[in-house]
Amino acid sequence: MEDLQHRLLEMGGLVEAAIHGSVESLVRRDAAAARQVLAAERHINHMEMDNDSLTIALLSRPGNTADNLRLLVAAIKINHDLERMGDLAVGIAHRALSLMEEPPVKPLIDIPRMAHLSERMVGRSLDAFVQRDAALARDVLAVDDEVDALRDAIYRELARFMQDQPETVPRALNLLFVARNLERIADHATNIAEDVLFLVEGIDPRRPG
Amino acid sequence: MEDLQHRLLEMGGLVEAAIHGSVESLVRRDAAAARQVLAAERHINHMEMDNDSLTIALLSRPGNTADNLRLLVAAIKINHDLERMGDLAVGIAHRALSLMEEPPVKPLIDIPRMAHLSERMVGRSLDAFVQRDAALARDVLAVDDEVDALRDAIYRELARFMQDQPETVPRALNLLFVARNLERIADHATNIAEDVLFLVEGIDPRRPG
Repeated sequence: MEDLQHRLLEMGGLVEAAIHGSVESLVRRDAAAARQVLAAERHINHMEMDNDSLTIALLSRPGNTADNLRLLVAAIKINHDLERMGDLAVGIAHRALSLMEEPPVKPLIDIPRMAHLSERMVGRSLDAFVQRDAALARDVLAVDDEVDALRDAIYRELARFMQDQPETVPRALNLLFVARNLERIADHATNIAEDVLFLVEGIDPRRPG
Repeated sequence: MEDLQHRLLEMGGLVEAAIHGSVESLVRRDAAAARQVLAAERHINHMEMDNDSLTIALLSRPGNTADNLRLLVAAIKINHDLERMGDLAVGIAHRALSLMEEPPVKPLIDIPRMAHLSERMVGRSLDAFVQRDAALARDVLAVDDEVDALRDAIYRELARFMQDQPETVPRALNLLFVARNLERIADHATNIAEDVLFLVEGIDPRRPG
């Protein structure tokens, strides 16, 4: 079980690095950084499958307590969420590669900020899981609101760009999808935080009342 | 176990109806249909939590075989995928509600077609799971390629609209996000199909070679 938690933390570290690298490659127009993200994703995918096998092995040991089972079920979900985040970082790296071939639309400020918050959410949600720390999990939910606000600002700004300078439409759409992927990464971290709250407090923040 | 499979099928039926209803509400500019999708999502969320509890109960029975455990782990993932699809249908319903307040950008042809394919993918991926039918699972993967091709066509068309008629940008962006959500729904159905292939054949189509 500790081994599994350790692996999820390690996988989370790779995912954070992939998010960071994908947005760095976008900001610095750095194709090598983008290609590193593509390579890291293969590694992340293998980890997901290995973690699933380990979880199944742990589930098959006799005498698991109800708490243990809940933990293992959460681990399966977290593992899956992390793998999806890796895919989303790859999506950003692809957009970065295609944007490098054309002049920049605008200086990027909010997107790196959004990436920074998303990375933090990933790290904290996993720490919350390993430490069963409900306060840390709630902190992740609060940061998600900041991410959503940034996304709204980015959307508004890019929509204005597209209307005022229609020739920027294809490039602005690429940037919009980067923001969208970061939002989804943050959503996955939010899922993890919600799973932690359910584990620790038996409260599912998604269930009303 | 049969009960769990039955519930996942039922949940899949609700998700298919939500996808259908959300796109119908968009095409017919029908606010009541959109609001039905919002109501259905609460139901879907509750089903997800109930199914998780049932799965944990099944996991805690002594003497589960390795095959059984793999099946239960797949059920947890499928349950989660279905819940996310419900969220994505809600996203479409929200866009439909906001698009209703303005004149249509263009007649919608490819989006309903994409919705139709995605619904079919959801139904077939669950049938493949319940029947452990690898051929049906492969069929889902093939349909996903069609969905991706439609999404590309929709993107190109909407990007052209935005460039030629910049005043359509905000509405075209809403349509673009509908297409994006349908693509993601299809991706979740693909996940389910991949889980089925892994269950039935021990082959993970994501693992290279």
